[in-house]
Amino acid sequence: MMRVGQPTNGKGNNMRGAVMYGPGDVRVDVRERPTILKPTDAVLRVTASCVCGSDLWAYRGLEDHDWPVPMGHEYVGIVEEVGSEVRSVRPGDFVVGSFFASDNTCEICAAGYQTHCVQREAAAPGGAQSEFLRVPLADGTLVATPGMPEDDLIPSLLAASDVLGTGWFAAVAAEAGPGKTVAVVGDGAVGLLGILAAKQLGAERVIAMSRHADRQRLARDFGATDIVEERGDDGVARIRELTNGLGAHSTIEAVGTQESMMQAIRATRPSGHVGFVGVTHDVSISGLDLFFSGVHLHGGPAPVRRFLPDLIRLIWERRIDPGKVFDVTMPLDQAAAAYRAMDQRTAIKVLLRP
Amino acid sequence: MMRVGQPTNGKGNNMRGAVMYGPGDVRVDVRERPTILKPTDAVLRVTASCVCGSDLWAYRGLEDHDWPVPMGHEYVGIVEEVGSEVRSVRPGDFVVGSFFASDNTCEICAAGYQTHCVQREAAAPGGAQSEFLRVPLADGTLVATPGMPEDDLIPSLLAASDVLGTGWFAAVAAEAGPGKTVAVVGDGAVGLLGILAAKQLGAERVIAMSRHADRQRLARDFGATDIVEERGDDGVARIRELTNGLGAHSTIEAVGTQESMMQAIRATRPSGHVGFVGVTHDVSISGLDLFFSGVHLHGGPAPVRRFLPDLIRLIWERRIDPGKVFDVTMPLDQAAAAYRAMDQRTAIKVLLRP
Repeated sequence: MMRVGQPTNGKGNNMRGAVMYGPGDVRVDVRERPTILKPTDAVLRVTASCVCGSDLWAYRGLEDHDWPVPMGHEYVGIVEEVGSEVRSVRPGDFVVGSFFASDNTCEICAAGYQTHCVQREAAAPGGAQSEFLRVPLADGTLVATPGMPEDDLIPSLLAASDVLGTGWFAAVAAEAGPGKTVAVVGDGAVGLLGILAAKQLGAERVIAMSRHADRQRLARDFGATDIVEERGDDGVARIRELTNGLGAHSTIEAVGTQESMMQAIRATRPSGHVGFVGVTHDVSISGLDLFFSGVHLHGGPAPVRRFLPDLIRLIWERRIDPGKVFDVTMPLDQAAAAYRAMDQRTAIKVLLRP
Repeated sequence: MMRVGQPTNGKGNNMRGAVMYGPGDVRVDVRERPTILKPTDAVLRVTASCVCGSDLWAYRGLEDHDWPVPMGHEYVGIVEEVGSEVRSVRPGDFVVGSFFASDNTCEICAAGYQTHCVQREAAAPGGAQSEFLRVPLADGTLVATPGMPEDDLIPSLLAASDVLGTGWFAAVAAEAGPGKTVAVVGDGAVGLLGILAAKQLGAERVIAMSRHADRQRLARDFGATDIVEERGDDGVARIRELTNGLGAHSTIEAVGTQESMMQAIRATRPSGHVGFVGVTHDVSISGLDLFFSGVHLHGGPAPVRRFLPDLIRLIWERRIDPGKVFDVTMPLDQAAAAYRAMDQRTAIKVLLRP
């Protein structure tokens, strides 16, 4: 296993990587560089990583961990070395991966649910906010781009590794499509990219729930046709006003709180679909409320791997620009400032360059 | 409104009907015969009715009501009289209806969710366990059979009005179909007819969860290929053993308790579908459990009306025999005994003949 929190002299087999020592305490340490442990592993030189909304739960003291913890699970990079059994990627390839490693061959993967792969494990066990990263099950987890990307495509490819794939899954789970009105609860990077996904999937109308001018602008950029600033009961009432009293056909829940989940269910018409991807903390759904809502409910950790080939193609052909969610770029050494900016919502999403 | 609990002399405009005066207290009263109140109403002479598993919640003191309450919401009968705006059924027609009245024209009905119709109201406001019944929104609610049914078809047509339609919806919500393994939690009439529905929809394997020999027999009659007697954790473990460690593709939840709901979710593989139709009482679903289960969850009051034309046809052509769930038939006057038999599970389902 990677040793954590032991500064070394920065030479030879060492690297820099972000480590959380406890709530609010992120440091960039010099750490041991990862190596191939299993013949199915790959080691990447990380080109870009970022801070995830889900990292903030730990940062805010709302998740318990055995500190210190190496951070980061979103990454793009160049393959440095592969294990003896790896066939689909080779050193020098530029690759995108998801936050869970998957074999991409089991029955669950074949059904498109790679985040529940029977061999599932963390794809970035050593933390992706670092210079190098070991990725298990490389053949099933990593997807190579058609060539070396131009630099301006890096943010979008990085977005594909989690927030775009997650927003896309939410839109698919909510059955966004032609003729549908889609409501989006949550104006973080995932919610914003859920808007982009709904639009790409052909939704007729996309209602963004947001009260922040900068996020509203990005929402409109990505395809939102309406903005609702109200929350809770008022937000639900406003969605109903906009949908002939019935509620949205499809609702994306991209927050993960009790209020946001109930707002999503109640904003959806009977027969409609709620796609929920906010990591649910202390959320409890009343069976009777769900029974009488008549909605379909589906979500969970997004099987980003299912969508990666399509998303990479859309980005490569410059048909979508999800990288716009990165409104701030920092060097890896400033990881602590990146977490602060995300926590205080002065940044939508911070890209880290090693 | 129908007056309840006022015995009259049994002549003229009166009829007999079952009334619950409180938990465990069902009586057959002589009551006022219903009449057309709105031009969209129909009045039926009830041919057969029955006691529903959902009636038992009140009978067992687990639901609060303003007593006394006229009982029954499952019915087949002959149209006696229609309001001036009714077009699709006429006096003399033999009809089947669902427990909610619906216009069958609104956007929600058009989506197949008639139980959430924007004009929804109770279809048997005066109680269907009676000689006559007023049904609102007759055009949208009632479906006429191709002719006067032979007597042996009456139980199956009555089953279509609720338990068959509900089991069918559960199987559709669980996406039962070719190549699928379907698990069924609950061996009441709805669960048993969920088995029949899964089989009709082409499921490869249907696993019934039941520990009662008579219900196991009926389950096999209806198409169950496997029986699991274990419940809770052991039941889930057994389902996993039978499904290569993965869980069922589709699970029908036809009970409505915390244990049965969690058993259904946990017995289902990631990517799978849970169709829940047991009226959920005090059920609370952990958002985090649902998030990491990877299942699709859908259910609620079954839009029986969506399926009635198909179900009537299958019954009329004698391709299915759902009426077998009625293992006891009693005259309406013995309604109290019918409730006792259902409550004590000495009967699967009791048919009442006025």
